[in-house]
Order: sequence, then structure tokens, then C-alpha cells
Amino acid sequence: MEYDLIIWMHNKEKENLSVVLTSGGLDSALTATIAKQEGDLALLHANYGQRTEARELKSFHDLADHLGAKERLVIDLSFLKVIGGSALTDDEIEVPLGDIKSKEIPITYVPFRNAHFLSAGISWAEVLGASSVFIGAVEEDGSGYPDCRDAFFDSFEESASLGTRPETKILIKRPLIKMRKKDIVELGLRINAPFHLTWSCYKDSLLACGECDSCLLRLRGFEEAGVGDKIKYKKTIRG
Amino acid sequence: MEYDLIIWMHNKEKENLSVVLTSGGLDSALTATIAKQEGDLALLHANYGQRTEARELKSFHDLADHLGAKERLVIDLSFLKVIGGSALTDDEIEVPLGDIKSKEIPITYVPFRNAHFLSAGISWAEVLGASSVFIGAVEEDGSGYPDCRDAFFDSFEESASLGTRPETKILIKRPLIKMRKKDIVELGLRINAPFHLTWSCYKDSLLACGECDSCLLRLRGFEEAGVGDKIKYKKTIRG
Repeated sequence: MEYDLIIWMHNKEKENLSVVLTSGGLDSALTATIAKQEGDLALLHANYGQRTEARELKSFHDLADHLGAKERLVIDLSFLKVIGGSALTDDEIEVPLGDIKSKEIPITYVPFRNAHFLSAGISWAEVLGASSVFIGAVEEDGSGYPDCRDAFFDSFEESASLGTRPETKILIKRPLIKMRKKDIVELGLRINAPFHLTWSCYKDSLLACGECDSCLLRLRGFEEAGVGDKIKYKKTIRG
Repeated sequence: MEYDLIIWMHNKEKENLSVVLTSGGLDSALTATIAKQEGDLALLHANYGQRTEARELKSFHDLADHLGAKERLVIDLSFLKVIGGSALTDDEIEVPLGDIKSKEIPITYVPFRNAHFLSAGISWAEVLGASSVFIGAVEEDGSGYPDCRDAFFDSFEESASLGTRPETKILIKRPLIKMRKKDIVELGLRINAPFHLTWSCYKDSLLACGECDSCLLRLRGFEEAGVGDKIKYKKTIRG
């Protein structure tokens, strides 16, 4: 009887499906690896006219293959490029060299971007019957994006509860929200997150530039964790 | 001095810009007409693979021309059709003949659709410096969509405040939220909303079917207001 219970619990756990917003960077690779411990994966990626769109998409598919995702969906949000207002999507605004100590909201902020990703995640989760939408957002560590704050996700979870069917209950899970890049690198190595398949650079698609905000944060994370990064860089602080 | 103040107030008022989510139906036509009283218009329309997409888009441009919109933006959310789960976007689910008295959530509900429209509205409003996003949602009158409830919009307004720059303040205005279709028709006629340019039918694009939920609500509104609808129908309840 106890054995049956274990089998039942095992099957029940495996029936659980999580949508994971997966950009293809370190944070989403770790988040998907964490989500996989809870059940099956439905990985969602968005193209939105960002500079390294094609390279990120390759990382997304590599991660989905590696993690054995049950479902995958790529959506097009290229109107975010038309709306503009960010160095990530507007060719006329230069991607700045890193300044990850600044308290200002960086010019790479894409207005209200995470709301679009979450809305797609919630719509898809409601149709699939998934119980969670995972996002690899990190509140601190210098990113400074307002739509990466924990309070924003709490509020959006409430909006999702009010704006979907009464029987739909979807949690927005953000397991990395309080971590620093060092913690992310360390946890990822411990649970075998496939970091070698990821892409973080905001600027280039062949070799990571090693100079933009995103490269600097990533490199600092590996350095502080005392391990090497397996992807290649054009240039790093140490030359 | 008083005259200068009036001029200044007039100019200040005219500097105000509102984003209006404009499907091309009665409700959004009235909403845009109301928003125009507060200043300039930036009209936003979404294609999302709905059956009458091209016809709705024509109404959108006709309304934008008629109201002298300062800005207009058409976005593509066709991934909502891929996600599916609604008779509006899934060719395998039949659009039902109207049953506008039912308490169930109708099969034309597109999962969390208004969150996508609002997210686009907020992103665009933040870049344009607009102070409001108007939506022509109606809570009652039988539509039954969870993402049309006033409480959902309150919550989303809070999410938008938390997820955008600290200096960004955008209200989500929903002037029709408590109205019935009869009130909408009456107010529209009083303030010259261009109802003759609108499209409501969920099913057909040449002549409105006169039988789907949306046609029935519209027809009932005109009937209760005691005036005729200027668009043509294939079939109406009265034959």
C-alpha cells in the first residue's frame, strides 16, 4: 500500500507541468533546471527584435533539447522593436560598455518587457493546464530593471489570478530573485545546469563581446565563484 | 492674465496624449471618442489571428482617420492563435450561436488576452510619454470574460506602476466598464462616436452574421436604445 502511494505520488509529480520563460542565458538555464525537478517542462522563448535574437534562439533550442522539454513555443514580439526606447532593440541607441555599478535604470531596459513574457506564459499555462510560470529574474546584482522586482511579480500574479478563469491557479515562480550571479553560477554547477549552451551577450552573436553589462555580470559571477566560463569571449577585463 | 491662463490650460490639455486600445468595435470607437476630449490620440490595434482580423483592421484605420489620431500602431500577436483555447482563434472550435444569458465563461474567451493588449499599451505609453491607456472593456452585459473585470484592471494598473520607470505614471482608464450596450449606444450617438465605421461580428467579414454573441449584444444595444444600426447584417433576430 505504501509502495502504491509512492508510485502514485511519483506519477502525480510527473504530471505537473511548468511553463518556463527561457531567454537562453544563465539565469533561465538554471531556472529551467530547477523547474525540471518539479515535473515536465514547457519552454517559452520570445524574439523581440533584440540584437542577438538568432543566437539566443539557438541557445533556447539547445537548452530545450538538453532538458528534454515536453513542449516548446517561440513567440514573436517584434513590435517591441517598433515601440523602441531601448538600446537592446533600437539600432540608433548604442549598447553601452558596462557600468554595472550605476543606480540609474540602464538604457538596455525594454519598457515593460517582462509583462509581455509573463502574459504569454500565463495564456499558454492556462491552455496547457500548467500550474506555474517560472521566470529567471534577478532583483539585485545591478540589473536595475523595474520589471525584475519581486513586488512586480507579486502584483502580476494577482493580475493573472483575476484575469483568467476562476479555476485557473498559476503561480509566478522566480527562484533566483534574491540571488547574486555568484550564487547562480555556484548553484548551477551543483545541479548541472547546462551553462555551456547559454548565451548572455547583448551585443554580438559569434563571440561574446566581454564588455556589455550582461557579459560583465556573467564574467563577474564566474570569477567570484572561482570557476571558468566555458563560452568564448572576444575580450575580457583580464584581456 | 486670465486669458493667458485659459490659453495655457488649453495648450496643456492638448499636450496630453492617450493610448487607446482600439479593436474597431462599438466599445473602442466610443472609448476613443471619449479619450479625444482629453487630448491627442495614439491608437493601438492588435491582430491575433482572430477570424475577422482583416475586417477589424479596416475599421481601426477608418476610426483613426476619422478621429485624426496623432499616432497609430498595429501589432501582431498571432502567437495567441498558436496558443489557442478559444473559438475566436481556433478554426477547430466553432463560434457558437449567441447565448448571451449564460453565466459560463464563453468559448470565445481568449486566455488572458487583455493582459497582452494592456502590456503593449503600457510599453508604448511609456515610450511616448502618454499619461493613460484607455480600454473599452465592459464588465457586465453578459460578456463574462475574467479579463474584463474592473478588479483585473485595478490590479494591472498597479503591476504597470511597479514594472515601469519610477517616473512613469500611467492610468488604465475604462470609461465604459459599468455601462450596458444600451448606454454605450446612447452615449455614442450623443457625442458623435463614429459607429458607422465599426465592426463587431466574430464570425464573418462581409456582412455581419447577426447571430454570434457579439452581433446579438450589439443588436440588443441598438434595439434598447430605440435607434437603428447603420451597418448591414446577413440575418437578424427579426429576420
